[in-house]
Amino acid sequence: MPEELADRALKLFPPPAREIAPGEIYQDLDLPPPEHRDPSRPYIVINMVSSLDGKAAVDGGAFRIGSEVDRTTMRNLRAKADAVMIGAATLRAEKLSLSVDETDGGSQPLGVIVTNSGDVPLERNLIQDEHQKVLVLVPEDILEARVGRLRSRADVLRAPTTSEGTINLERALRALRYEHAVELLLVEGGPSLNHALISSNLADELFLTLAPKLLGGTPGETLTVLDGPALLAGEIRLLAAYLAGNELFLRYALDGS
Amino acid sequence: MPEELADRALKLFPPPAREIAPGEIYQDLDLPPPEHRDPSRPYIVINMVSSLDGKAAVDGGAFRIGSEVDRTTMRNLRAKADAVMIGAATLRAEKLSLSVDETDGGSQPLGVIVTNSGDVPLERNLIQDEHQKVLVLVPEDILEARVGRLRSRADVLRAPTTSEGTINLERALRALRYEHAVELLLVEGGPSLNHALISSNLADELFLTLAPKLLGGTPGETLTVLDGPALLAGEIRLLAAYLAGNELFLRYALDGS
Repeated sequence: MPEELADRALKLFPPPAREIAPGEIYQDLDLPPPEHRDPSRPYIVINMVSSLDGKAAVDGGAFRIGSEVDRTTMRNLRAKADAVMIGAATLRAEKLSLSVDETDGGSQPLGVIVTNSGDVPLERNLIQDEHQKVLVLVPEDILEARVGRLRSRADVLRAPTTSEGTINLERALRALRYEHAVELLLVEGGPSLNHALISSNLADELFLTLAPKLLGGTPGETLTVLDGPALLAGEIRLLAAYLAGNELFLRYALDGS
Repeated sequence: MPEELADRALKLFPPPAREIAPGEIYQDLDLPPPEHRDPSRPYIVINMVSSLDGKAAVDGGAFRIGSEVDRTTMRNLRAKADAVMIGAATLRAEKLSLSVDETDGGSQPLGVIVTNSGDVPLERNLIQDEHQKVLVLVPEDILEARVGRLRSRADVLRAPTTSEGTINLERALRALRYEHAVELLLVEGGPSLNHALISSNLADELFLTLAPKLLGGTPGETLTVLDGPALLAGEIRLLAAYLAGNELFLRYALDGS
């Protein structure tokens, strides 16, 4: 299947519509928005790609759902972020990087991996930039034997836990803000981490790339953008929409419910 | 949660962008397109609503995912269709109608329900307009005892079957075209019927309403727009995009692969 190589993009919303270069999508955003600079936690944006039928990954890897333009927008968002976060299941599913290709002399965002089990295949699946610091968030009471081997490649941050024994995300985020100066946190999945943040009203925005594909797959075989109990739907506002080729780039504000 | 009551809509794509009344979305379409009037089968458009996280139904009912504007666009499409088709599982899941509220003196589209089992709760769940003819498509070798009770409210069309014993959709569609003069067929799900049509390259367009909601739910609990084996992704083209409130109305051409 030929890769879509859009050479122009349209800003569709908000008006006025105008033509831009595909590489400009999300490039001029001021994030976090000045009115949302909160000292108690980072401003959190989630970036995901989905097919038209709502599938966020096939065969465990999301890489090929989006086009080259989608990867450019991902890099544009990463370049603004102080930290890029994923859940450990996403790293277990595929080889990936959390860094920015060209930093133009700037620094790499902090890589953050959230795990309740300690099963984080850094060596096998993390393509690590030598200038990028990586932090693994683990429950405070996890056995050192389960995290010790991570310390050769990452820092380990023990975070307070909920009554269920999983990481208390709100308190972990506060630690990222205070101890690691993370003002803008970019979350790139997986569906369970997205759900945990959204259901706790901790996510501020969703960047959703809608790839012009129908992937099929039966429930259980394929992932959607969110995985977790049904949510009470809050108000969600469309902030911006772009089109490159047949792929839509949608930015939403999650104002909470 | 307050219902979104958009009083204006934007046609975002194709350019030029312009403001329209929400009720005008999809109202001026010429369907089937003149160049696609094929005597061998109807022109087939699928209309579905999905949340941002790809969920097409919660608790078995899709009704509340879309807004009032979505229901208006559904009526606009039904008013153009010669027949409105659903799978029997969709009727088993919720009370619904396949008719047009106000026909302005015109006739009702033919209602078509596809079933391999004969389990079609017409009496319990079909809100039937007295002027609407309903056709139940069944496999040609189904026992009369399983379909006899349907005949008080509908016509029963026995369709040729595949080697797996399920309805041969291509041949059933030919019968709709030749025997019932269906030139434009609107399919409203469910996910298995959508998948069967798309995987057989029988669907020409997808109208996808992207509701500004995040619904959550775990795989297996919730439906997506398509349910069936993984598909080979074909070329999909965005034909039009509208925005009303925060809800997007997307029209795609499915050119097959």
